[in-house]
Amino acid sequence: MVFQHYVWYVAALPEQVDRQLRRRVILNEPVLLYRTEAGGIVGIKDRCPHRFAPLSRGKLHGDVVECGYHGLRFDGTGRCVLNPHHSANHPKNRVLSFPIKERYGFVWIWMGDPELANTDDIPDLSYMEAPGIRNVYGYMKGDYRYDILIDNLLDLTHADYLHVGSFSGGAAGGRSETKTFEKGNDVFVVLNQWDAAPAPTIAHLGGKVDQRFVIHWHPGQVITFEHKAAPAGQPLLDGRGFCFAHVATPETDGTTHYFMSIGRDANEDPETDKQAMIGMSAVIRTEDGPMLDAIDEEMGGKDLMAMRPVILPGDAGGLLVRSVMQRLIRAESRNPDSDTSPS
Amino acid sequence: MVFQHYVWYVAALPEQVDRQLRRRVILNEPVLLYRTEAGGIVGIKDRCPHRFAPLSRGKLHGDVVECGYHGLRFDGTGRCVLNPHHSANHPKNRVLSFPIKERYGFVWIWMGDPELANTDDIPDLSYMEAPGIRNVYGYMKGDYRYDILIDNLLDLTHADYLHVGSFSGGAAGGRSETKTFEKGNDVFVVLNQWDAAPAPTIAHLGGKVDQRFVIHWHPGQVITFEHKAAPAGQPLLDGRGFCFAHVATPETDGTTHYFMSIGRDANEDPETDKQAMIGMSAVIRTEDGPMLDAIDEEMGGKDLMAMRPVILPGDAGGLLVRSVMQRLIRAESRNPDSDTSPS
Amino acid sequence: MVFQHYVWYVAALPEQVDRQLRRRVILNEPVLLYRTEAGGIVGIKDRCPHRFAPLSRGKLHGDVVECGYHGLRFDGTGRCVLNPHHSANHPKNRVLSFPIKERYGFVWIWMGDPELANTDDIPDLSYMEAPGIRNVYGYMKGDYRYDILIDNLLDLTHADYLHVGSFSGGAAGGRSETKTFEKGNDVFVVLNQWDAAPAPTIAHLGGKVDQRFVIHWHPGQVITFEHKAAPAGQPLLDGRGFCFAHVATPETDGTTHYFMSIGRDANEDPETDKQAMIGMSAVIRTEDGPMLDAIDEEMGGKDLMAMRPVILPGDAGGLLVRSVMQRLIRAESRNPDSDTSPS
Repeated sequence: MVFQHYVWYVAALPEQVDRQLRRRVILNEPVLLYRTEAGGIVGIKDRCPHRFAPLSRGKLHGDVVECGYHGLRFDGTGRCVLNPHHSANHPKNRVLSFPIKERYGFVWIWMGDPELANTDDIPDLSYMEAPGIRNVYGYMKGDYRYDILIDNLLDLTHADYLHVGSFSGGAAGGRSETKTFEKGNDVFVVLNQWDAAPAPTIAHLGGKVDQRFVIHWHPGQVITFEHKAAPAGQPLLDGRGFCFAHVATPETDGTTHYFMSIGRDANEDPETDKQAMIGMSAVIRTEDGPMLDAIDEEMGGKDLMAMRPVILPGDAGGLLVRSVMQRLIRAESRNPDSDTSPS
Repeated sequence: MVFQHYVWYVAALPEQVDRQLRRRVILNEPVLLYRTEAGGIVGIKDRCPHRFAPLSRGKLHGDVVECGYHGLRFDGTGRCVLNPHHSANHPKNRVLSFPIKERYGFVWIWMGDPELANTDDIPDLSYMEAPGIRNVYGYMKGDYRYDILIDNLLDLTHADYLHVGSFSGGAAGGRSETKTFEKGNDVFVVLNQWDAAPAPTIAHLGGKVDQRFVIHWHPGQVITFEHKAAPAGQPLLDGRGFCFAHVATPETDGTTHYFMSIGRDANEDPETDKQAMIGMSAVIRTEDGPMLDAIDEEMGGKDLMAMRPVILPGDAGGLLVRSVMQRLIRAESRNPDSDTSPS
Repeated sequence: MVFQHYVWYVAALPEQVDRQLRRRVILNEPVLLYRTEAGGIVGIKDRCPHRFAPLSRGKLHGDVVECGYHGLRFDGTGRCVLNPHHSANHPKNRVLSFPIKERYGFVWIWMGDPELANTDDIPDLSYMEAPGIRNVYGYMKGDYRYDILIDNLLDLTHADYLHVGSFSGGAAGGRSETKTFEKGNDVFVVLNQWDAAPAPTIAHLGGKVDQRFVIHWHPGQVITFEHKAAPAGQPLLDGRGFCFAHVATPETDGTTHYFMSIGRDANEDPETDKQAMIGMSAVIRTEDGPMLDAIDEEMGGKDLMAMRPVILPGDAGGLLVRSVMQRLIRAESRNPDSDTSPS
């Protein structure tokens, strides 16, 4: 499978990286993650260039990792800083190092040529840092291709079937309009509803509501969801209501790291936030998870379009993302500086 | 693996199909089976044409199945009768429907072009419905290619080795003669024995017997076994003695649905019939099962003849079936109306 | 994977072969091993030429094995000595027979043309039979390619990292010199150390020592280790100190039969010998095992050199073995009498 490499991916949650040597596969590439003594994060290829032992089976000396098989030591830039068997160090004796950045409660990684990494290209999730907003985070593994999850996330129409009684209270009624469009390399799906039954999370508003969902997909497979509502006929609240982020980082051709966060106005206690994440995770695990697993098995690794699906309006977002992704991946393969399969 | 499609296969036992949505894979094809409110049986492809969700993960509304992912509804003919997302229904928005027929205590399915399905082509097992005959049925899954089972069933000679002490009392002695022949597209193996030790099931006859086994293979991998016996020198009984049916419906390239029935003159109580099926299943499970599993693993998915086996007389039936099957499958691939790989 | 066939391999330990029919896969080939009534050992292909049933599912009649499926009987030479279904026996009706020899506490097998088998070609491990030497033996399965184990065994330098606190007491210090060379088709790695800290096993010598490790690789993947030591400045002891044998018989492309023995001057009690084998096995199981498993997975079945590793001095032995093996396998493929893929 050809992945996009010149983009920031979410590699981990900050609490998943510590002074243990931890292996995480991203885009089929084994990555070793650990924190330096100063608290920074290192991401280097988890494979010694000598005998291909996973460096995660070795140990840390300060900020330097020692291979557990023959004792070669590599620093956080991937340079071999100690070769106990040879005075002259061969230039090949290094491992790839991946640019890493902690931001917005995620650990970001750049899988392409490190020289082109620019943290300005990390998607703007600064809403997470707005005054009064509190975020909670979650993680799970998905046994399905990342694009099966992306299609799911960009499509609000499945909620009334897969999530009846959990995320969805059933058909919202009223009038509605959905727009799907591209802006730069981002894709937006915007749903406006008028005179609708409120989503369960704002059922306390009582009566009919006007509400808007904005789904915003960024390259790197980062999606934010914004939900604003007001009693029908009144202007949508300035407050954010809810804002979720869902992230689908490809692990291998057929598996996915699924990160999520919920950001809310901090007018509730932390216990409530925690329960919100537990609740959302439980729904995803028990309702989306088995369905996406089953679909992944039916598709047997084939691309969606190769299977000539019937197309419904709710697919517009997923199809637009596909076309953006094809353009981005084609651009990478034309770029002589890019290497879509780092070794 | 190329299967024959224009033939009736046994898909299920009637008690395996009910108001639950049940998935059964046949010839590598996922089939959804359920009963209508009137008690009929529906067999449609278990894969929504939209996002390839198994329809068996959805739910029934009357006789209509609703996909659990986006709520498309399909009736028993495979037609989409409700698309909540689109007023205009695309002609591609349908699933394959398979002709189904209950007969002789089996649920039969036609996997080729539905227009060519003719229930007259279901193998004639009307002996099951003869007055006074009572049948019991069984089912098990086999982790081996269907033709490994067919070879086993058409060959009586393995009984004296694999089934000593269960089906076989050891060498029968006396004179015997085996004929293997083709009639239309059916294959027969007929064994006549004179002055032989009786099979364990008729040991109560005492003394030497004359007996005849008739194995009758039908396309669709349906095999009947008839056993008649009489004290040596007397005419074979008019009564049926025993008559079994064994059916090897291919599930996937390497696995098999194994159906069986025992039909007997109803001069015994139902408990005895039930015990007979339990006994036969136990022998197959503990004696044939492990042997066929082991052979399947040794053969690694290769065809028997490609492995250039030593041929023994008991292989005559299996080899004749192979030649009939090659002819039938070749005929299907020449037929412009046929489609051996429905999508 | 192409294996060398015209060489003696260790198939089993003598106590692993008895009057049970036991299957052991060697070079991807299923082999049936059993003892004759006289105590000899038979090795024949574990696959009936009729229907490919594993003969190990059959039973022994004296020294003759009867297939459990149709009763064909084969003797220890692979000849069919009874065909109950056919008076004329087809010349194809035989199974391969492999020359077998018990020697040095191992059961050796020859996987090439039996006519070329010569027990004089079994590696000379006669040190095991020297007066006063007592050997203990061990066996384990390895879930890695055999050459990953060979590389490990020919390289002493990993001990100071993988085996700190078990086999290794840490850096030995002093002066040292390693020579790697070829002699006939054998490969030697010789390490001399002067004024070194003693290995843990001879720590009782106290003070600095001079010591020598001789690693001797033989085709058939048999490796002996000899360790001699003396107080620094004194001549190396005539006694053997320790002598290990480690054997890596390929089971399949990706798995290995790992045999080992420890031979010592019998100046200690048998319980100590047994404990030595338990201790060595435990270290291999807990230290080498997980590392070699992880490396095998990283390499994904690819050849070492195809992955362009960084080369260190400790790799010299493994690389020299590779070049010898290429020469030996090339010679087999040129030999019109040889058949590297017996059927």
